[in-house]
Amino acid sequence: MRIAVIGLGLIGGSFALAAKERLHAQVSGWDVDPEAVRKARAMKAIDVAAPTLSVAVADADLALIAAPLRVLPGLVNAVLASAPAQCVVTDVGSAKRIMSPYGEDQRFIGGHPLAGAESAGIDGARADLFEGSTWYLTPSDLTSGVLYEHLHRILSGIGALPEAIDPVAHDRMLALISHLPHVLANVLVSQAAAGDRGNSERLPATGPSFRDATRVAGSNSSIWTDIYITNADSIQLAITETIARLQDVREVIAAKDPVELTAWNDTAAADRRRLADRQVAEGALYELRVTVPNRPGVVADLALTLGQAGVNIADMALYPAADLSDGVVAFWIVGDEDVKIAQNALAGHGVSVDRI
Amino acid sequence: MRIAVIGLGLIGGSFALAAKERLHAQVSGWDVDPEAVRKARAMKAIDVAAPTLSVAVADADLALIAAPLRVLPGLVNAVLASAPAQCVVTDVGSAKRIMSPYGEDQRFIGGHPLAGAESAGIDGARADLFEGSTWYLTPSDLTSGVLYEHLHRILSGIGALPEAIDPVAHDRMLALISHLPHVLANVLVSQAAAGDRGNSERLPATGPSFRDATRVAGSNSSIWTDIYITNADSIQLAITETIARLQDVREVIAAKDPVELTAWNDTAAADRRRLADRQVAEGALYELRVTVPNRPGVVADLALTLGQAGVNIADMALYPAADLSDGVVAFWIVGDEDVKIAQNALAGHGVSVDRI
Repeated sequence: MRIAVIGLGLIGGSFALAAKERLHAQVSGWDVDPEAVRKARAMKAIDVAAPTLSVAVADADLALIAAPLRVLPGLVNAVLASAPAQCVVTDVGSAKRIMSPYGEDQRFIGGHPLAGAESAGIDGARADLFEGSTWYLTPSDLTSGVLYEHLHRILSGIGALPEAIDPVAHDRMLALISHLPHVLANVLVSQAAAGDRGNSERLPATGPSFRDATRVAGSNSSIWTDIYITNADSIQLAITETIARLQDVREVIAAKDPVELTAWNDTAAADRRRLADRQVAEGALYELRVTVPNRPGVVADLALTLGQAGVNIADMALYPAADLSDGVVAFWIVGDEDVKIAQNALAGHGVSVDRI
Repeated sequence: MRIAVIGLGLIGGSFALAAKERLHAQVSGWDVDPEAVRKARAMKAIDVAAPTLSVAVADADLALIAAPLRVLPGLVNAVLASAPAQCVVTDVGSAKRIMSPYGEDQRFIGGHPLAGAESAGIDGARADLFEGSTWYLTPSDLTSGVLYEHLHRILSGIGALPEAIDPVAHDRMLALISHLPHVLANVLVSQAAAGDRGNSERLPATGPSFRDATRVAGSNSSIWTDIYITNADSIQLAITETIARLQDVREVIAAKDPVELTAWNDTAAADRRRLADRQVAEGALYELRVTVPNRPGVVADLALTLGQAGVNIADMALYPAADLSDGVVAFWIVGDEDVKIAQNALAGHGVSVDRI
């Protein structure tokens, strides 16, 4: 398998390392910065330092574009113009609605791994960066089922948990789990640094909880300004909700009612546990087989339906019929509960289930 | 030296371990929970498991009370009733105004280490927990200079950075650097768990930045309900300021102005660095000698003045005059800049400075 990695930062470099180590892929790399390319070669993340982007992707089976949001559209256009007809093209941008137009090309599937920091360079790259991390995929109505399966396989192969999601839902979710936490970290450090500390001249000392809460404060502006602008509407909504929640809790604290305060805090503890426990189900492995018409988008649509229902797809395979008129998609699902949810979600598609 | 530790959780247990390891102290311990006492004995954090609190402190040079805010006042009263006349009595509660009344007893000096989690038990105790961490002290007008110096020495001896602070300034500062981050972590998890994720049924997957930001969400209610109630006024003020800052940044994001967004984010980055860089100065070591009248509170007052000016006291010593009418306090200060600030802050006290 030949993989092209466009953009050799932490994400691109880690993907390249993982693809070589886990999938024994032949990796060609390109970056606008020759120093990043040199480092990628030195750490054996790439086999070939391509002289141009076009050369990097010319014979690729997969092209992964790992670059800041600002330059992503231009790079995706360039890659689609040079990549072969059967090459999956994907990006790792942390906003996905802006990438939707590229879904017009059946080779493009937007992506976004929830791992690493976009601001970091290749120095921190490591083959296990994506191990156990969700990797969102945003297939379109036109996405080739074969290419979607191909991408799913590759991402599973490097230890990630691919999950199909609608770009709108993705951007709302990311506002809550990433962009809003960055905003709050910024507010916390600036409020503490400027803070009302009586008549002390001294900056406050901070403890471990403050340092954890503000680790991402002031992340690389060259990345984050674009994120704030690109996902502005979702972030504004998230901030508005945070303000409302803070107004509520301020009242609860003002009332000094231990019962209400404890209930509020216990709810947060339970919510934290629920979010932390969201993981791949454990249990028996099942294969769900769904007969589908052989047209673009249908596989992606099934994957989206399962993602929306909260079902992880451990693995998937396509079995096109000989006449290419229709085919079978097999999804591997773990756990009795998840397989029931999956059956319900796909009801009407003629699903058969086998325990493996 | 004989040390009594009342309350054998993470903080009490770690202090006991550090006092034995670093200061070769003889440590007696007491806890309302016999299991905590058993564990403390098993891990050799204490030499003696005292049958009662009174016995634990009966011949102590220092009594440290490491218990939840709710039970602190009762325990401090009990310890003061049983401790010898020359015993320093200190607590580790994370709100300090409520402990102010005990400053009427010259033996009591409120304290609060910025390390560890109050909710954790002795299992995680370790001798180096306080290494390099600020340990706030809130001496009163009546605090014995000898006992203040004694406590400062012991805390420096276990690797902590003791710093005198006014209880009002402490509680405001803690609202900003600890209590507010806890409130925001709670809001973040509950907002993400309940979040508007389009039509998805699934809880959002979270990445490393979210997990860092919410590590303390829903911390032990039996501790935190008391903190929220005890420091309610300062926390309300902090929340109000956060809301105002969020309203501002929401406007900046809505305007999608890259220049303004970058400036806002860069300010946060600079504030984060300033807070992280707040550390003990490096450079030459100086001894500042201050002649003071031998009356209660004077040493504590000097320490407060230096703390307020942002000067760390690396070490200190008292040299009472033979007739006890007045004496000399020596403060060891590191770095040319800090020693100048210290001289200015103590101007009018007749300060002499020697480089050591």
